[in-house]
Amino acid sequence: MIRIVFLGTSASVPSVGRNLCSVGLRYEGDVYLFDCGEGTQRQMMKYRLSYAKTRAVFISHLHADHYLGVAGLCHTLHMIGRTKEDVLHVYGPRGTRRVIEGLGCNYEFLKVEEVGEGEVHKAGEPGRGSLGFSVRAFAVEHGRNALGYIFEENAGRNFDKPKCDALGIKGLMFKELEQKGEVKAAGGKKVKIADVTVPKKGRKIVYTGDTRLCDGVVKAAEGADLLIHDGTFGEERRQEADERDHATAGDAAKAAKKAKVKELVVTHISNRYEKTDALLKEARQVFANTKIAQDGMELDL
Amino acid sequence: MIRIVFLGTSASVPSVGRNLCSVGLRYEGDVYLFDCGEGTQRQMMKYRLSYAKTRAVFISHLHADHYLGVAGLCHTLHMIGRTKEDVLHVYGPRGTRRVIEGLGCNYEFLKVEEVGEGEVHKAGEPGRGSLGFSVRAFAVEHGRNALGYIFEENAGRNFDKPKCDALGIKGLMFKELEQKGEVKAAGGKKVKIADVTVPKKGRKIVYTGDTRLCDGVVKAAEGADLLIHDGTFGEERRQEADERDHATAGDAAKAAKKAKVKELVVTHISNRYEKTDALLKEARQVFANTKIAQDGMELDL
Repeated sequence: MIRIVFLGTSASVPSVGRNLCSVGLRYEGDVYLFDCGEGTQRQMMKYRLSYAKTRAVFISHLHADHYLGVAGLCHTLHMIGRTKEDVLHVYGPRGTRRVIEGLGCNYEFLKVEEVGEGEVHKAGEPGRGSLGFSVRAFAVEHGRNALGYIFEENAGRNFDKPKCDALGIKGLMFKELEQKGEVKAAGGKKVKIADVTVPKKGRKIVYTGDTRLCDGVVKAAEGADLLIHDGTFGEERRQEADERDHATAGDAAKAAKKAKVKELVVTHISNRYEKTDALLKEARQVFANTKIAQDGMELDL
Repeated sequence: MIRIVFLGTSASVPSVGRNLCSVGLRYEGDVYLFDCGEGTQRQMMKYRLSYAKTRAVFISHLHADHYLGVAGLCHTLHMIGRTKEDVLHVYGPRGTRRVIEGLGCNYEFLKVEEVGEGEVHKAGEPGRGSLGFSVRAFAVEHGRNALGYIFEENAGRNFDKPKCDALGIKGLMFKELEQKGEVKAAGGKKVKIADVTVPKKGRKIVYTGDTRLCDGVVKAAEGADLLIHDGTFGEERRQEADERDHATAGDAAKAAKKAKVKELVVTHISNRYEKTDALLKEARQVFANTKIAQDGMELDL
């Protein structure tokens, strides 16, 4: 199961109800953060996402509301004895190293990498129980070097039970098939893994960070199970959205529709919106399967 | 009225119930912070202490849990248009400037000053409605250069109503007395302010930051209306308290008793203590008028 936890859903200034930006993703016990605004470590405690199991932080861009929480998180990991063998990766655009070092983060377990478009992280291998996944960065439109991230499981295969039964595949033969790609079945017949499996598509989750509506997001989000998109304002603040390189809730829905994603969550909500009914309505007129993020909201994929 | 708001009461690692260290003080509409851990700006929003009216932050020492929140607070002040005419003072021990600049705080309204023992800030003047106050730093025992702070109103005078009545002081004559120090009363008699007032002692609040029990605190806190003292552990963790230069709740009470303060609040509570009944009992055995701080706790003096 992949669990998504919305740890902070405010735009650049927090409110009583919304902490600064961060989206947590738990995959097979490990935790990954997309942005890490001030106070994220405590939001993880509050919403029961293990800060101790954080493996990587993906920073979208270098506005303070998206990265300041790295300092407190690292300080706490240091206090609980994190060692250099248990690396915390922090990925972000050019300038990230200087910014993170400025925060006083000189911990042996911390590895900061400045990245551009393309693959930035991977974990696990396909076909060994887990599918494993990669995270790729893509360019968005929000000032210089701003990035979004695609979390995508590797493609895998599911066993086709009727075919397996017909060929007498059982017990440890499954493991051998996974490990060697073939096995000797009943009667000495050689069975290849492709004979008894069907391809399985990995799950795909796309996080835009801050951005205006742009083709890059649509392309990156194509066919995603979940798109998490900037929706700082409603259409009535179109000018402000345009001037500040942010999307409206309606823009987010347009991207979701064009990219044919399964589900959209709109986040990075300006503190001008205490109630978000109007934002939700605006988005759902374009793309029905939309939610407006709230702090603590969980989605299981 | 002086209002004290406990914005964050945890030791170095926060918990669901306790944010990182900060004590807010409101004096005549202006707000002063003693330490400013990660997430302090949002705690101010939650507990209705105006972040926009913050005039100064007094940092006790340069452990991350005591200053990281300055970055987010400044970012938000910048977002709401704070100008250089409306200075935010940040005071702290040697090294504070480098640390705060590292956080990316290059705002025109920000003035960082490295201080040692002695007066570091003053505001208002005695005898003009408000008494005004000063903040003095004093050395505590918690690593290098750690400071505590004494907030003390200037001494003033209260009008003595029977004496005023007897001499016919009324209406605008009070203002003239305050401004010029004397006034012509009924019958042309010259009345000096000392003739119709009694001395008024200013209120005194002492914040230790992190410290072990030490004579410096006792001296600084002498006769204070309120002592806010480190009480990270209970007596059963004496060794840990000693090794880490922290006080126990009982230590805090000893300081309060020796200094003959009116009231003690113990704060900077380790996340090992979900319940604080035992800490309270330990302290009250030594000094009865003790509270254990909770996030959001308010005291009016």
